[in-house]
Amino acid sequence: MSAREANMGDGRTVRIGLLGSGTVGAAVIRLLHEHGDDVARRAGVHLEVVRVAVRDPGRERGLPLPEDRFTDDAGAVVDDPTIDIICELMGGVEPARGLLVRALASGKSVVTANKELLASHGEELFTAAERAGSDLYFEAAVAGGIPLIRPLRESLAGERVDRILGIVNGTTNFVLTQMSEHGWTGDEAVAEAQRLGFAEADPTADVEGYDAAAKCAILASVAFGARIVADDVYREGISAVTPQDFQDAARLGYVIKLLAIAELDDEAIAVRVHPAMIPDVHPLASVRGASNAVFVEGPKIGQLMFYGAGAGGDPTATAVVGDLVSVARNLLQGARGPGAGSTNARRVRPMDDTRDQYYLKLRVDDRPGVLAEIADRFGRNGISLERVWQEGTGEEATLSFITHRAQEGAFQKTMRELRELDAVHAVASVLRVEGEE
Amino acid sequence: MSAREANMGDGRTVRIGLLGSGTVGAAVIRLLHEHGDDVARRAGVHLEVVRVAVRDPGRERGLPLPEDRFTDDAGAVVDDPTIDIICELMGGVEPARGLLVRALASGKSVVTANKELLASHGEELFTAAERAGSDLYFEAAVAGGIPLIRPLRESLAGERVDRILGIVNGTTNFVLTQMSEHGWTGDEAVAEAQRLGFAEADPTADVEGYDAAAKCAILASVAFGARIVADDVYREGISAVTPQDFQDAARLGYVIKLLAIAELDDEAIAVRVHPAMIPDVHPLASVRGASNAVFVEGPKIGQLMFYGAGAGGDPTATAVVGDLVSVARNLLQGARGPGAGSTNARRVRPMDDTRDQYYLKLRVDDRPGVLAEIADRFGRNGISLERVWQEGTGEEATLSFITHRAQEGAFQKTMRELRELDAVHAVASVLRVEGEE
Repeated sequence: MSAREANMGDGRTVRIGLLGSGTVGAAVIRLLHEHGDDVARRAGVHLEVVRVAVRDPGRERGLPLPEDRFTDDAGAVVDDPTIDIICELMGGVEPARGLLVRALASGKSVVTANKELLASHGEELFTAAERAGSDLYFEAAVAGGIPLIRPLRESLAGERVDRILGIVNGTTNFVLTQMSEHGWTGDEAVAEAQRLGFAEADPTADVEGYDAAAKCAILASVAFGARIVADDVYREGISAVTPQDFQDAARLGYVIKLLAIAELDDEAIAVRVHPAMIPDVHPLASVRGASNAVFVEGPKIGQLMFYGAGAGGDPTATAVVGDLVSVARNLLQGARGPGAGSTNARRVRPMDDTRDQYYLKLRVDDRPGVLAEIADRFGRNGISLERVWQEGTGEEATLSFITHRAQEGAFQKTMRELRELDAVHAVASVLRVEGEE
Repeated sequence: MSAREANMGDGRTVRIGLLGSGTVGAAVIRLLHEHGDDVARRAGVHLEVVRVAVRDPGRERGLPLPEDRFTDDAGAVVDDPTIDIICELMGGVEPARGLLVRALASGKSVVTANKELLASHGEELFTAAERAGSDLYFEAAVAGGIPLIRPLRESLAGERVDRILGIVNGTTNFVLTQMSEHGWTGDEAVAEAQRLGFAEADPTADVEGYDAAAKCAILASVAFGARIVADDVYREGISAVTPQDFQDAARLGYVIKLLAIAELDDEAIAVRVHPAMIPDVHPLASVRGASNAVFVEGPKIGQLMFYGAGAGGDPTATAVVGDLVSVARNLLQGARGPGAGSTNARRVRPMDDTRDQYYLKLRVDDRPGVLAEIADRFGRNGISLERVWQEGTGEEATLSFITHRAQEGAFQKTMRELRELDAVHAVASVLRVEGEE
């Protein structure tokens, strides 16, 4: 008799083992306690957290759960044959990966918020779930409390989604919002974000775009039925964005956002994370602070947008509990939720083959002929210019450009050539331009 | 042996009977044809439309379906024992109600986009589905292609949603957008909407808010686990909104939108549809044309927003096919999706007991003492004023007010008293103010 049959026999309680009890884990415990009756009504069964693996079981947590349910032995939780669902909220690749593979292999279902793990070892986990006939749910791994994975996997099952574009990292959006509204430098804005708890002591994962790249990989995998890992995602963080960029952008009618973009075109997938100028009338332009917002596009559905809290204990816990209810319902009925399904062998388009618009600002010699010399380089590389303007004089002379859509490889080649020109003193700024098509 | 077991035995095809083949029905047939392989991959089974009930089976439709699948006998489709799912896209209460009750009673599952039917006879249908152990899915009934019902029923299963506020009627939003941007009258904008196919020849259901009220009732029922019908919804259409209102609103920093609002407070549900002034920086203010957008709020999740195409054949068909895939997966596994569940006995709060802010513009005598006389009436009824301003002179003299939040009953009583004052010539405008808390 499998663990599942043994425990579900009475149909009254689904037993949950929690791995990790940080902000989100504590919020899940509280939510299941406060909304327990509603949750039971919707799941058709009572959900109970029977064990919680934490680093320090003795620490006072003020949670509505008996002390003896806390343990420092995560392996024992995973191996406990009376547990039906493992809910992993510890984060990081190891030991989470090993524990979840073990849980799935023993027939347990898994709910996880672990974007880093899914974006690096998703295939291993999905294969393990498939083999065991277990559920693997992960709504909370992307965009916190915003329902996104379920709409993509279920509501849009009839659509061929071909583009996802969004703000999926709250920390950098908070930082960029502060830079935009107060004229602060990135360092000043990061310090403020740290002070307010929106950024970690080491902000690298957010600021350099690693967090957004992991989410981008997960969204592309789900939306396009493919296996995309974080390393496939072209990634640029926000550390090169300056207060001057915001001023220049504002004057042109743009704002600057860190975007995650996944595109399916001609059976190849382009995935990238980078700061971009978007028109200030674009709906994403008004997404302020730590909020997230994601556009989903397809030929039939047109444009959908999902907006909400991209992080935080309570919103993320809501997503986790939504998954727990679905998995509990499935267990109760001996059914499975939508798995990864068979995946298409789609290739990842090399970044050089993608097409985009670019904004470029150069410090240049203040003399006749320089524009012609630079424009010639663009022309030879097949890049046409939408706008060119000159500002400043003498040492302050700059030339700025917005290109038409051009091939990334051709643009980078042009950039290399421009850097070698005597007339070009420095590249003051390069930003992609999105949201205008 | 039930119909379900008989047909699902081979696990290769789920057979669908379609009732109605208008814009949405035709789009569903095309979508299943074009994306058939993707759909089968996600459902785990092939979905086939085996019969379509239409008024005139002989008419040339140019659809990728053999002519002999069309019939004018809807009853025969519903009674066909080889059919697993009835997909109802005919609209209206009868004969749809009778047909779906019959379908559910015979063990078939139902996917419907029929908001009018659900908002008037939802309880009968949910009970029939519950009794038969069948699925009843209806994502397409509210906000077209925007995933909303599934997030509410499943993703937010752990949350106590307490407020829904949105633009759920594309026709009136198109009309209001035209009025706002071109200074048109309502009649001019409705004529343009009819010319472009955004409004029906008889626009009453949209313009007077009946369509939005039906959707409001469905959203409240799903979000609050209650049984709310369209008749419970307080309803005001947009026909009293004038070009002058848009000018006045713009000067104050507001736009005018037709909102559907459902609130759960102290175990009582308030449901209402009416035009309202909202701040021009509110995210709903930028929802233009025929788009829909819905805010969902709760204590844990904060604010979520869902935005997209609220109507149209292809977006709505996407929602229908998403439901068909879920129902097919359920059939395949002998499982059921989340039903209506047990519902709470929550009362509908009488409109007089709701609280709101109000904008009021009066034509008045141009003489000292009038403001004091009017302000006195507000004060006696316990309504405090946030802003008061006077404009024009002589015959053109007006007094305008924005109240603090006040009880609807007290405001209506004040209005009756003001209309009887000699100093008050006419009520030029009354609008609720939303989105400021």
